[in-house]
Amino acid sequence: MAPNPHLDEFERIARFFAPLAAPGGLRLLDDVGLIPGEAGEQYVLKTDAIVEGVHYRPDDPPGQVAQKLLRVNLSDLAAKGATPVGYLLVTCLPPACGEAWLEQFAKGLAADQKRFGIELYGGDSNATPGPATLSVAMFGKVKRGKAVLRSGAKPGDLVYVSGTLGDAALGLAVLKGELAGLDPAGRDFLIRRYRLPEPRLELGRALVGLAHAAADISDGLVADLGHVCTASKLGATIEAKKLPLSKPARAAVQAEPERIFAALGAGDDYELVFAAPAQAGKRLASLSKKLKLPLTPVGRFEKGAGVRVLDAEGRPATVPQTGYRHF
Amino acid sequence: MAPNPHLDEFERIARFFAPLAAPGGLRLLDDVGLIPGEAGEQYVLKTDAIVEGVHYRPDDPPGQVAQKLLRVNLSDLAAKGATPVGYLLVTCLPPACGEAWLEQFAKGLAADQKRFGIELYGGDSNATPGPATLSVAMFGKVKRGKAVLRSGAKPGDLVYVSGTLGDAALGLAVLKGELAGLDPAGRDFLIRRYRLPEPRLELGRALVGLAHAAADISDGLVADLGHVCTASKLGATIEAKKLPLSKPARAAVQAEPERIFAALGAGDDYELVFAAPAQAGKRLASLSKKLKLPLTPVGRFEKGAGVRVLDAEGRPATVPQTGYRHF
Repeated sequence: MAPNPHLDEFERIARFFAPLAAPGGLRLLDDVGLIPGEAGEQYVLKTDAIVEGVHYRPDDPPGQVAQKLLRVNLSDLAAKGATPVGYLLVTCLPPACGEAWLEQFAKGLAADQKRFGIELYGGDSNATPGPATLSVAMFGKVKRGKAVLRSGAKPGDLVYVSGTLGDAALGLAVLKGELAGLDPAGRDFLIRRYRLPEPRLELGRALVGLAHAAADISDGLVADLGHVCTASKLGATIEAKKLPLSKPARAAVQAEPERIFAALGAGDDYELVFAAPAQAGKRLASLSKKLKLPLTPVGRFEKGAGVRVLDAEGRPATVPQTGYRHF
Repeated sequence: MAPNPHLDEFERIARFFAPLAAPGGLRLLDDVGLIPGEAGEQYVLKTDAIVEGVHYRPDDPPGQVAQKLLRVNLSDLAAKGATPVGYLLVTCLPPACGEAWLEQFAKGLAADQKRFGIELYGGDSNATPGPATLSVAMFGKVKRGKAVLRSGAKPGDLVYVSGTLGDAALGLAVLKGELAGLDPAGRDFLIRRYRLPEPRLELGRALVGLAHAAADISDGLVADLGHVCTASKLGATIEAKKLPLSKPARAAVQAEPERIFAALGAGDDYELVFAAPAQAGKRLASLSKKLKLPLTPVGRFEKGAGVRVLDAEGRPATVPQTGYRHF
């Protein structure tokens, strides 16, 4: 077969890398791998890189870059219900990232190590003529067989999301000089959501045995829910009017209605999307209260394939960008 | 303390990253981390990245780039006596690395997966505006407490090296149009040694219980032996005349005597340097015969610090470059 120059990121993975996966690599459908740990445990393995100018802005504070790097990995562990243990770190740094940059970067790592109870297990330190490229391999623990995979959703399960959606994409828009009409506090809130995601570790652990499937939202709700659908061999329908929005995001959507797509199609929120049966509603409501974190049903899994979005009037909507895709 | 703009790679690691290390991170003195595995086992964790234009040449065949990426990581596992299990992969690729490149790259991964008994457990696939940056986190197994660390050398132990040294650096010189006087077969041998290192996994496993300390030679003999010395709180003296050279390397040194520094100060050979007591000589000789791999004593560990090199006349020599250093 002649190489197709237009394979996107997920097609590339499916075609070139999935055939290389171990059984514990879950056909690369789950963004994590599983290996046996100590008695009764498994390790959940995850690797994610961030590239200057692609995943973060060159002028982002180095400490927050470090935290973002750890948190995008922690977020995947959260989605599986794992307790993080530690990480390996690769830094490929251009001359512009000198010791002052590195000192702040290391302080960010130290702060999040303390906060999330993780430590560094090794690394590799390189110079690069290109943009800073930072890669982490994170590992955590779950009870054997208890990881919440993408593949367990059942027809009729509700599609839940945690927190609020679209904030990170709107924060990036603010950093680009857009959304000038928002108040300063709202703008700061959105920027912070872009720069410093909050891995939902406590939620993820509480979802073990409660959710049938889960993923973190790093590529956008439609894309990541799509991954859950693919792994679960199901489809899903979500209703745009049910999407949980923060107050600043709601203001942004009121001013510019197409900004709703930030909540549907843009990544970087690092909230969780999960499948839970309707009868879990009460337990989820009390969990939401305990964690002070909205847990919102936004749709339903169903037989079929793919994600359908209904707009405020209940009509099928087209989402212009379903998640950030490399290539 | 004011940031020092001239910290080298190892000083950067010691200053900024070592304070972040877990006990299982071995103070970052060992290039690997250890975590508990199944009953009686530990996992050895290692991460290493390669950057286009830094660690390999843009025109290197993509399949060999993939193999080099895996092998530089496997080499560290070999040095610890571990049996490799699997890996996580991060690819950050520029537009120039399209599907044709990726297809060859994946074929290289597949070939080495089969050869070394490893599988893929997950990954991350990114686009980058910079040079291709490829990162692997590799894990393998050892019996608990049996990993051969850098920290176990004892005064009086002999410094052994496996295989031949300097070939990779000379291969790179050939690729740069140097060493034109060598015969074609010799040039091909050296290029192959540069492009396709041979992780000494079988040797490493056989050294468990036999060697007191070991490291792979990725930064050059003097640098990597120096790491063993630092971790073991010892010094070492090596004799240049004892260095094992391949036939083409010997020819290169005869033509240009300063090429001997390729065997002392250049990296990329991915042979092992290890500490063994004199009484292990017989067992090492029979191991060498069994593996068809030279195991050569080139010096001795001693009280003190740092690595001394004696030239052919027994005079202290200065090695111009002690290993590749980023920054």
